[in-house]
Amino acid sequence: MAKTWSTEPAQSLRVREGWSLADVDPASTPGFEGSKKYGQQVLEAGAEQLSDLQEKLFASSRAAGDTRNVLLVLQAMDTAGKGGIVRHVVGAVDPQGVHHHAFKRPTEEELAHDFLWRIRNQLPGVGMIGVFDRSHYEDVLVGKVRELAPLDEIEKRYGDIVEFENELAASGTTIVKVMLHISFEEQKARLAERLDRPDKFWKFNPGDIDERNLWADYQNAYEIALQRTSTDGAPWFVVPADRKWYARVAVQKLVIDALRGLDLAWPPADFDVDLQKTRLAVS
Amino acid sequence: MAKTWSTEPAQSLRVREGWSLADVDPASTPGFEGSKKYGQQVLEAGAEQLSDLQEKLFASSRAAGDTRNVLLVLQAMDTAGKGGIVRHVVGAVDPQGVHHHAFKRPTEEELAHDFLWRIRNQLPGVGMIGVFDRSHYEDVLVGKVRELAPLDEIEKRYGDIVEFENELAASGTTIVKVMLHISFEEQKARLAERLDRPDKFWKFNPGDIDERNLWADYQNAYEIALQRTSTDGAPWFVVPADRKWYARVAVQKLVIDALRGLDLAWPPADFDVDLQKTRLAVS
Repeated sequence: MAKTWSTEPAQSLRVREGWSLADVDPASTPGFEGSKKYGQQVLEAGAEQLSDLQEKLFASSRAAGDTRNVLLVLQAMDTAGKGGIVRHVVGAVDPQGVHHHAFKRPTEEELAHDFLWRIRNQLPGVGMIGVFDRSHYEDVLVGKVRELAPLDEIEKRYGDIVEFENELAASGTTIVKVMLHISFEEQKARLAERLDRPDKFWKFNPGDIDERNLWADYQNAYEIALQRTSTDGAPWFVVPADRKWYARVAVQKLVIDALRGLDLAWPPADFDVDLQKTRLAVS
Repeated sequence: MAKTWSTEPAQSLRVREGWSLADVDPASTPGFEGSKKYGQQVLEAGAEQLSDLQEKLFASSRAAGDTRNVLLVLQAMDTAGKGGIVRHVVGAVDPQGVHHHAFKRPTEEELAHDFLWRIRNQLPGVGMIGVFDRSHYEDVLVGKVRELAPLDEIEKRYGDIVEFENELAASGTTIVKVMLHISFEEQKARLAERLDRPDKFWKFNPGDIDERNLWADYQNAYEIALQRTSTDGAPWFVVPADRKWYARVAVQKLVIDALRGLDLAWPPADFDVDLQKTRLAVS
């Protein structure tokens, strides 16, 4: 096989002017040349690349004053596979270099602040890969569908988000925003599995079906949110997710490319190597 | 081979009445029956067990109101392999279920508080595995060797630590405290490697040799600290660490046993499964 990707995910999955969610087939595998089995091999090989890049990012921050970092934002309907991305893509890198946070229904304290307050509190430190399992986007998704805020407030939030992310990007954060896109039918099958297997009961919540019954509203809210907030500094990527293997390999590639874009290298010694060798020898 | 461990690490490595650090040979492999190669196989098999146990711990907290968690405390002289434990032992479990924190030299803000303040801020949530890379023990180790606090304050801290950890244990945290124990000679070899390899420069700091030159003082401070704070609720384990493979497999076993001690099971459904199947079917 000449190459793994005929078109890079960073190109084919990006939300641009004129994009619409209905045009994305959740069962498709855009740009990937090969079978599921090959996909799994690519994922395995990619794990090493990712781990190596992450270590360089971390090293640069510790020894060379590099203040950059990476933030992966994961959004999706229930069962779309956010957890699998965390385990199988992010799980390949050193836990020391990962800051993972799952955003739940906001607490009283969080609600007493601006919606970005709790997000700012969880931003990754320098040299880290941050992973948001849900994010500030909940405030324009469930917030809109469930009418948790007036429409003009939702409108205002799109702008606040763009401004916030521009700030982040300007201060050295490479933001990779991913929506895992599954079909209505595939969600049904995955929820059915959770109801069939006692080792999966804990992942099921009756509220998941309430949300499912608002499917069209959510798709609409996603489409608008992504159109309004996909910028050059923080683009959205919509990853077809009916095939778990494809979603994993595509997200892995997006993160690898984000890290490659940083031109990372092992930081040079900021001490006199020969002098330290001598000191060590006589120690 | 009949069994992997002739004596469990939880037995053979535990700091008890009458224990002394000089009795632990850093190059030994207590209780392990087999070669390095076999050790690596055991580590690989253990990764799956650990991952399964962690998922049950997490699931129990999310769906069954289980408020327990686990805290792994790692202490060691430089180069002893804390990072390798995090990568190769902790790295096997879902990042979602891990709260890792590396404690550095205290900040101004941290110094303005009691020494346990910053520790309390990093305790793992329910259902999580917390990992401390260094910890409150720095305040009776470097604190003592570098005379950062008066001796009577150091004395008081041993008692404060025991009380603090008893509280934690009583509130449902299983604490596993590990000192990775390397020899003076092995540290020299590992520091030399960091000075030889440009991809390792970032891990080296000239201050590491200053600390090395206080080796005997540190060994003494460790011995006293471990003797004073190894309790039934939060015992210390001293893991010979000149052989990285042994240290990893031993710490993995300690964590697996800690999790097994919790008698974890998949939480039962807290909803009517048949009713939800019907709701899903018509959704």
